[in-house]
Amino acid sequence: MQRRLMYFFKIALIIQLFIGISAWAGQDASKLYLPGDITQEQAHQVMAAAVKKAVDNKLLMNIAIVDAGGNLKAFMRMDGAFLASIDIAIKKAKTARSLNMSTYELSKLTQPGQELYGIEVTNGGMAIFGGGELIKNKDGLIIGAIGVSGGSVAEDMSVAQAGAAVMSK
Amino acid sequence: MQRRLMYFFKIALIIQLFIGISAWAGQDASKLYLPGDITQEQAHQVMAAAVKKAVDNKLLMNIAIVDAGGNLKAFMRMDGAFLASIDIAIKKAKTARSLNMSTYELSKLTQPGQELYGIEVTNGGMAIFGGGELIKNKDGLIIGAIGVSGGSVAEDMSVAQAGAAVMSK
Amino acid sequence: MQRRLMYFFKIALIIQLFIGISAWAGQDASKLYLPGDITQEQAHQVMAAAVKKAVDNKLLMNIAIVDAGGNLKAFMRMDGAFLASIDIAIKKAKTARSLNMSTYELSKLTQPGQELYGIEVTNGGMAIFGGGELIKNKDGLIIGAIGVSGGSVAEDMSVAQAGAAVMSK
Amino acid sequence: MQRRLMYFFKIALIIQLFIGISAWAGQDASKLYLPGDITQEQAHQVMAAAVKKAVDNKLLMNIAIVDAGGNLKAFMRMDGAFLASIDIAIKKAKTARSLNMSTYELSKLTQPGQELYGIEVTNGGMAIFGGGELIKNKDGLIIGAIGVSGGSVAEDMSVAQAGAAVMSK
Repeated sequence: MQRRLMYFFKIALIIQLFIGISAWAGQDASKLYLPGDITQEQAHQVMAAAVKKAVDNKLLMNIAIVDAGGNLKAFMRMDGAFLASIDIAIKKAKTARSLNMSTYELSKLTQPGQELYGIEVTNGGMAIFGGGELIKNKDGLIIGAIGVSGGSVAEDMSVAQAGAAVMSK
Repeated sequence: MQRRLMYFFKIALIIQLFIGISAWAGQDASKLYLPGDITQEQAHQVMAAAVKKAVDNKLLMNIAIVDAGGNLKAFMRMDGAFLASIDIAIKKAKTARSLNMSTYELSKLTQPGQELYGIEVTNGGMAIFGGGELIKNKDGLIIGAIGVSGGSVAEDMSVAQAGAAVMSK
Repeated sequence: MQRRLMYFFKIALIIQLFIGISAWAGQDASKLYLPGDITQEQAHQVMAAAVKKAVDNKLLMNIAIVDAGGNLKAFMRMDGAFLASIDIAIKKAKTARSLNMSTYELSKLTQPGQELYGIEVTNGGMAIFGGGELIKNKDGLIIGAIGVSGGSVAEDMSVAQAGAAVMSK
Repeated sequence: MQRRLMYFFKIALIIQLFIGISAWAGQDASKLYLPGDITQEQAHQVMAAAVKKAVDNKLLMNIAIVDAGGNLKAFMRMDGAFLASIDIAIKKAKTARSLNMSTYELSKLTQPGQELYGIEVTNGGMAIFGGGELIKNKDGLIIGAIGVSGGSVAEDMSVAQAGAAVMSK
């Protein structure tokens, strides 16, 4: 019973949250960021889809979302997820946006002997393994990126792609 | 109508999110973090209360939550909120936890001629103005901290306190 | 005779040290850190076991211990031990805790062509070779990590493991 | 009874520790560091005296000791002591040694309008408030420094001075 109450409490909070934001957005803030950039509400949807994918697959993830300017928009660390992955998730998102490719694609270009070998020491440290994916809107415009860290590269990629997919369909 | 559908879609997503996490927590992850540390679900509640306060007062905020170890747990930047405040919000939360006091209290100790003048250049940069508050549980145990940046110091503090208050009552 | 006096002086100091701490712990400080996290007294035991192992094997080591939050708890550099190993020992301990694996395990995942190749440039520099080990309590809960640097990787690992073993048995 | 056993176990460990080190020092390591530099055994004595002072005054401190080269020799964080003070204690010790004065003396020279105003942003961040003290041997030779952080400046200084005093008398 108490659990049920908690449950409705949480939903109520979140409803208030979204209603408030809807009312607010488009007013005073409208001159402060580019139209089309990922919004807080969209970041929420991307985050929720990524977390759902992680939970469904019993993964403990750090999830970071950056906007079109490569700046952190949202972040969450699931309970028990790696501490190192705070920075890695953020770097994966930033790296993906700042090179406009997934960090998995980048990983192939940065091996010894490949073209971008050594790039990871620039920009204060880049993430050169999979788990960073671009977030595109329905028109294919890049509006941000998502970085996921906590599992294997394949797992990180699947969670990041599940998050990014919400915006492109 | 479409708006209404979106609305229920969002709630459904979030419900799944919390149910999933509830089932997951306390199982495999239980050896990976100390019991009592702020959880993802608690961080959500703190974040929601802080955002609600910001929305109610028409403020555009960056909000960061760290755990008892000072490590980033959750972050959100509201649409149009300052880019500089990404780092400031995170530093405010880390600073509050790492000195076990609000950054407003700290601000008084760090003025020229005061005891801790100059402390801000340690720890890779500390935030020495208000907006970082400790998060304590009902027993008074420190379980994390919240940092808010985007408005005046008084506004930042009010939002941070609104977030932290959720855990202590 | 003088040597013998010095000897008892040292023991007396250390006894006072431990008695004092035992009386102090659990009083005013009890709201300031999570129960279960590695204590000063436990860190002492881990450090003593690691140093003993180093001495037995005529090794000159830097030894660092971090808590569950990845924050430095104790450090010691043996006379003549490498200066570079100050940072390496600390990074090994932090790296182990922040990825919840020994840095030896990590070393296999970070070779060219492997999944986590390049991870070392994140988090302000990670240690990706052996010598960092998790510290678990008797229940298997991770309460910190130990990093050792100064010898070969095998030597570093043996000293780190000797230290960590004290807490898990 | 069990407590008593634990007690002797601890002392036994520490005795082995010191005996081991005494046998070891002066052999292979003798070409690796300057004669007269602070030794592990001396650092232990300084640390023990500082911790005793802290315990006697019910203070929760971070204590760092650097050698004559300004490199970290020993560190300890008491249970519940500030996380921020890890870096601050280390920086106090390094700052004291690298300017050959206590950080309290330095604090007077670094106020607005004073000669060294602004020095704190050099050297990757210096500590410009009291709590860092030089460690000198009986002849007045500087053999290292101690940095203490966790209380008021006066408390930090008293603990640091108690530690350093062991070497000069």
